[in-house]
Amino acid sequence: MAMVRIQADAMQRVFTTILIQHGFSPADAEESAAIFVQNSVDGVYSHGVNRFPRVISYLEKGLIIPGAVPDVEGSFGAMERWNGKLGMGNLVAKKAMARAIELAGKLGIGCVAVRNTNHWMRGGTYGWQAADAGCIGICWTNTFPNMPAWGGTDPRIGNNPFVLAIPRSDGRHIVEDGAMSQYAYGKLELTALQGKKLPFPGGYDKDGNLTDDPAAIEESQRILPMGYWKGSAMSIALDAMAAMLSGGNTVSDVGKQGTDEYGISQVFIAIKPTCFSTTQGNDEVIDRIVSDLKLSHLVDPRHAVRYPGEQVLAVRKDNLAHGIPVEDAVWSVIMGLGGVQNA
Amino acid sequence: MAMVRIQADAMQRVFTTILIQHGFSPADAEESAAIFVQNSVDGVYSHGVNRFPRVISYLEKGLIIPGAVPDVEGSFGAMERWNGKLGMGNLVAKKAMARAIELAGKLGIGCVAVRNTNHWMRGGTYGWQAADAGCIGICWTNTFPNMPAWGGTDPRIGNNPFVLAIPRSDGRHIVEDGAMSQYAYGKLELTALQGKKLPFPGGYDKDGNLTDDPAAIEESQRILPMGYWKGSAMSIALDAMAAMLSGGNTVSDVGKQGTDEYGISQVFIAIKPTCFSTTQGNDEVIDRIVSDLKLSHLVDPRHAVRYPGEQVLAVRKDNLAHGIPVEDAVWSVIMGLGGVQNA
Repeated sequence: MAMVRIQADAMQRVFTTILIQHGFSPADAEESAAIFVQNSVDGVYSHGVNRFPRVISYLEKGLIIPGAVPDVEGSFGAMERWNGKLGMGNLVAKKAMARAIELAGKLGIGCVAVRNTNHWMRGGTYGWQAADAGCIGICWTNTFPNMPAWGGTDPRIGNNPFVLAIPRSDGRHIVEDGAMSQYAYGKLELTALQGKKLPFPGGYDKDGNLTDDPAAIEESQRILPMGYWKGSAMSIALDAMAAMLSGGNTVSDVGKQGTDEYGISQVFIAIKPTCFSTTQGNDEVIDRIVSDLKLSHLVDPRHAVRYPGEQVLAVRKDNLAHGIPVEDAVWSVIMGLGGVQNA
Repeated sequence: MAMVRIQADAMQRVFTTILIQHGFSPADAEESAAIFVQNSVDGVYSHGVNRFPRVISYLEKGLIIPGAVPDVEGSFGAMERWNGKLGMGNLVAKKAMARAIELAGKLGIGCVAVRNTNHWMRGGTYGWQAADAGCIGICWTNTFPNMPAWGGTDPRIGNNPFVLAIPRSDGRHIVEDGAMSQYAYGKLELTALQGKKLPFPGGYDKDGNLTDDPAAIEESQRILPMGYWKGSAMSIALDAMAAMLSGGNTVSDVGKQGTDEYGISQVFIAIKPTCFSTTQGNDEVIDRIVSDLKLSHLVDPRHAVRYPGEQVLAVRKDNLAHGIPVEDAVWSVIMGLGGVQNA
């Protein structure tokens, strides 16, 4: 695959222009584009630049509604329930986490549950958002049914990404952003394209054998939950919480709408760790954890033990300095979406 | 292993008597014993009857303080921070979740972070507690360092059990209660005693090969995080949140105290899903999820797909009817702890 490197500000102009052409206000286009760009800067290309064309196709199908403003359907103390009104998923999610942070400022903890929203792209975005505001962030989403439950062979549960973020005042936050599947379908596809095997078994082949062959798993559609029964159970619990708190669709409801994923349910929790008058030394808590991790005896001396989110900052620095690596083919598709002449 | 079946009320009398003999008030002894018994009734013997003798040894070492009453060290809105004062872990945890439920009643969501507490036994206890009160429960604990971080070979992180509970009004709650390790050490020990292999690789042998041989993993002490890097990352994030919110020990701090696990940190969150005036049909949300799960095509027609917590109710019914199965040897040890003559 030939790659180009696109500067973040150039990518921002292209995405903003295309989103405006698809019905967004300039301010919304700017803000949504900035999330796609930041995800790409941070190395999460699958939910940044590589995903952009599919989002445009959802806009064209009318599954994402530009300009939709979420309704507050319920409010009680530190809790809110929103209707995302099929708005752009990353804009709705950013607003919801911002409100959870605001509630946490008033009451120590805040929670916004959103129904009828769309794919948030990279869940970590909202973890970094909370941590940048000095808050612990906990958020998750349900998805289209894309994974068999443990003991089943057909996709009935979601991979339901789950995010935990813990702030440090210098921005070196702990951010864990992980789906309930062992591997994403994107990882299977990429590994198959490269003619490689997965490092660990990632699902079952059509004969029911565990396999590290990504093509065999793509064929069977039997991806493996992380930790076998454990990821399956967590996926079910996360779905139940999201649908119950938001009053929205379950994973199975999303599947019944057809073959596209829209109208999903999400939960955003922010906690302000400095809310106690006795609080001090929060940075030092993470420093104690990280410095101990770094004393680990290594499996391979070339590979240090990392805390979750550590690698993001290195990739961010590199991509800001040298441009975001994008496959030629992907960038050509994006150039064909309409924005290029104005970028 | 020869087994006896002990009726729940008989076990309750024995445990209560022994705890009173070890310094508990009759009311505290009754309440703590009831948790050990319920865990056993529910089939979680490892954190019920089988764990009781070790808890007594911790009482005798002075690592658990009978009669300790938690201090509220901080309070802000829907958040509290407690000092567990090395009290009995299951009593402190039950009080903390009860307070989180109370806060959720007032503000929709409540969170109590506890430092300086002790092993809560079965985390699911506090999930069931929240769900029985009509709340979603989210709670976790840190532990002694008992698992290598991903990429390391020596134990630096905890298995940090994490609980998600979602209520149904008839008590058939969804309760996911899982540690961040693929298997508990108790499971390795039991499997090794039975001369069996694990169903999936559970760690590395001393030569660094993934293995399903439980004895080889006990020798290397290299248990596997669930989902490899995923469980490792979640463990680190859960530890950071617990230590930061409670102002308490991290996993590494707990390890530096010596070879016993005490003075740990825990977080209890309750959310009241009926807090919104628009709320209705919460039971029906879970019914939709479960009824769809039950449509799964099965790997093995003899093994239905289950929702998390489903099996507990069947075991509970059986153990209440026929007594709690206990190994002869374990019951003999407990009889020797002092309470038997009064039971």
